[in-house]
Amino acid sequence: MTRTVGILGGGQLARMMVLAGAPQGLRFELFDPAADACAGQLAPLQVAAFDDEAALAAFAAKVDVVTFDFENVPAHSARFLAERVPVYPNPDALAVAQDRLSEKTLFRELGIPLPPFADIRSRDELAARVGEFGLPCILKTRRLGYDGKGQFRLRREADIDAAWTALGAQVERTGLILEGFVAFDREVSVVAVRGRDGEFRAWPVTGNWHVDGVLSVSLAPAVLSPAQQQAAIGYARTLAERLDYVGVFALELFCRGDELLANEMAPRVHNSGHWTIEGSETSQFENHLRAVLGLPLGDTRMLGHACMLNWIGAMPDATAVLAQPGGHWHDYGKQPRDGRKVGHATLRNDDAAALAAGLEAVGKQLDRGDQVAPAADALRA
Amino acid sequence: MTRTVGILGGGQLARMMVLAGAPQGLRFELFDPAADACAGQLAPLQVAAFDDEAALAAFAAKVDVVTFDFENVPAHSARFLAERVPVYPNPDALAVAQDRLSEKTLFRELGIPLPPFADIRSRDELAARVGEFGLPCILKTRRLGYDGKGQFRLRREADIDAAWTALGAQVERTGLILEGFVAFDREVSVVAVRGRDGEFRAWPVTGNWHVDGVLSVSLAPAVLSPAQQQAAIGYARTLAERLDYVGVFALELFCRGDELLANEMAPRVHNSGHWTIEGSETSQFENHLRAVLGLPLGDTRMLGHACMLNWIGAMPDATAVLAQPGGHWHDYGKQPRDGRKVGHATLRNDDAAALAAGLEAVGKQLDRGDQVAPAADALRA
Ligand SMILES: Nc1ncnc2c1ncn2[C@@H]1O[C@H](COP(=O)(O)OP(=O)(O)O)[C@@H](O)[C@H]1O
Ligand SMILES: Nc1ncnc2c1ncn2[C@@H]1O[C@H](COP(=O)(O)OP(=O)(O)O)[C@@H](O)[C@H]1O
Ligand SMILES: [Mg+2]
Ligand SMILES: [Mg+2]
Repeated sequence: MTRTVGILGGGQLARMMVLAGAPQGLRFELFDPAADACAGQLAPLQVAAFDDEAALAAFAAKVDVVTFDFENVPAHSARFLAERVPVYPNPDALAVAQDRLSEKTLFRELGIPLPPFADIRSRDELAARVGEFGLPCILKTRRLGYDGKGQFRLRREADIDAAWTALGAQVERTGLILEGFVAFDREVSVVAVRGRDGEFRAWPVTGNWHVDGVLSVSLAPAVLSPAQQQAAIGYARTLAERLDYVGVFALELFCRGDELLANEMAPRVHNSGHWTIEGSETSQFENHLRAVLGLPLGDTRMLGHACMLNWIGAMPDATAVLAQPGGHWHDYGKQPRDGRKVGHATLRNDDAAALAAGLEAVGKQLDRGDQVAPAADALRA
Repeated sequence: MTRTVGILGGGQLARMMVLAGAPQGLRFELFDPAADACAGQLAPLQVAAFDDEAALAAFAAKVDVVTFDFENVPAHSARFLAERVPVYPNPDALAVAQDRLSEKTLFRELGIPLPPFADIRSRDELAARVGEFGLPCILKTRRLGYDGKGQFRLRREADIDAAWTALGAQVERTGLILEGFVAFDREVSVVAVRGRDGEFRAWPVTGNWHVDGVLSVSLAPAVLSPAQQQAAIGYARTLAERLDYVGVFALELFCRGDELLANEMAPRVHNSGHWTIEGSETSQFENHLRAVLGLPLGDTRMLGHACMLNWIGAMPDATAVLAQPGGHWHDYGKQPRDGRKVGHATLRNDDAAALAAGLEAVGKQLDRGDQVAPAADALRA
């Protein structure tokens, strides 16, 4: 009766899944091209390329179900596995979410509002679409981008050449997409889960702050009107149902005035849902596993307020956070490296003002006042 | 900077410590005589006898600090390790808690009320003390007892011979102690933690129900007057300070009317504190690690009510618990075996009546109405 979950990718998301799944009596097998993938500290790790079919077949033979820590596994590898063992989310949903053009086309089809976008095949097409959308706008690779990588912001006409120089060479490998730039007031995400039986649950919408395209801080619940909360969760549900999605996913949205505009979908547990470990009755990691195993979903209710701070590059000293009531530490066991997500902290408090004060104390002690300020301000507003 | 915690014993307590410590970026090394010790699924396990000094020395060389999942490690092994690496709790505290006679002598010295007790060296001494304490009373081994093992209840004069037949042979190996029997109304435990710097924190006192000497159900907070809560926590604090104790421990007490009588102390994380994983801001496992590493202690506050159900022998089906709001599952990954603790469930709810209803639903679905009834009744009272 012991069940083994296979995870493609062995990073921090896999690591937190293993930690959430061990109490369920689950065993794990990991698959990652990197021998030092940090989840490998807690479960057996098979080191191979994601397109190595012999390795994938051996992996499939060891597990009862496959899921992902990394969404950019080649779609054909996911399909190859799905012929051998159940794979959740399904490879077609993964394929849609991997490609900004397909995902945005689907948003439009489903009536989910979003900024203008266009497939870009040449410098001339880029120039024409920039003329149409107006400046600023953003050129992105359609596939394989993450943490703001593979993006170029165009502010002036003159940037068209620079953008094409930077990304034009990718047009065959990853494809390119141009998006209108949204001068948003806030960014939010819906982290939600759908079970094998179609049951759907969402955590309260989370507010997010990015620095250089990388998530820096998440605050839950987000400052959002009840109508916007409902609309955002409704979009996530529509999307999940259309894709017959099973597991946890995130839908990132921009808020501009009363408008909500979809940005992208992540077909996996998401950095903006890390606060659910301590801030919700059931964490995103546990509910993802419950979903892919066909178990009843857990309660997504949260108590009070939670704020997550990402640690990028290297871990700061833990003491300031641990000394805060409701301060929780997460060190992924990774080697420090510039721009790398190496850990996070979550501060939880029933009281918004107390959480703001706690964030400011941590910001001061760790010399990260700039990081915590937007969340502290939102909590006091 | 990565720190490695060595744990003597690799059972479910070690397993839950590993799960609590991994987010702190900690590594673990386990030491257990059993090759299939269940924590070994999550961390490297050295298989050797607890008195194998060569193995202990090799173990000490791999770790930054040593602690215990199992309190009956020979005291000289703990001392052997303490000459090589910091050991928490300290071996002297461990030695006191290992021996019912020393621990009860210390309770008396510290003014902690407890039932009458006496060291027993012979059948005649047993008969004399039974005459003094009156019946019923309990003969126990001084050392190496757990889960009600190594105990004999004397109800009538005639039981003296039976008791001596059952346990008399242990008089040299483990020693024997006779205790007056307490016709208690309730059993409770204080689970508390003391830091290296002497900081002390306790979780709310927990109510416990045993079946055949084995913990069956814990409910927090216990039904106890504020004065009794305070007294119980005060006893725990006095004890920890006298022993210069570092880490988590439990003090078990009987309630009889307004009286609180100490039963025993467990020098480790404790089964009656498992509810803290979901029911408190900081779990006993995390705070134990924070304490032994000299980090600030986390908040021991709980939210609402939590009830833990022990699974003994074999795991039931998880669905009934997972379908409850606030239902959490813990499967230790152990082989089923009669009388063995193989897992537990925790149900958490802000509302006492809702928790009672949830317990009854689970009791019904799992055909364990008897197990849940006392806790459900206490919640409704
Ligand atoms: N169209 C846009 N308008 C304004 N800001 C954007 C736009 N697209 C991306 N950004 C900013 O860059 C961040 C990262 O871009 P995103 O498309 O989410 O890529 P990634 O896959 O790297 O997360 C977003 O969270 C947002 O802050
Ligand atoms: N003196 C006593 N009076 C009444 N009940 C007792 C007494 N000693 C033990 N018991 C019962 O047996 C259980 C187990 O005994 P305990 O001394 O705690 O041993 P163990 O180390 O096995 O937990 C207690 O929780 C209590 O229910
Ligand atoms: Mg994004
Ligand atoms: Mg006991």
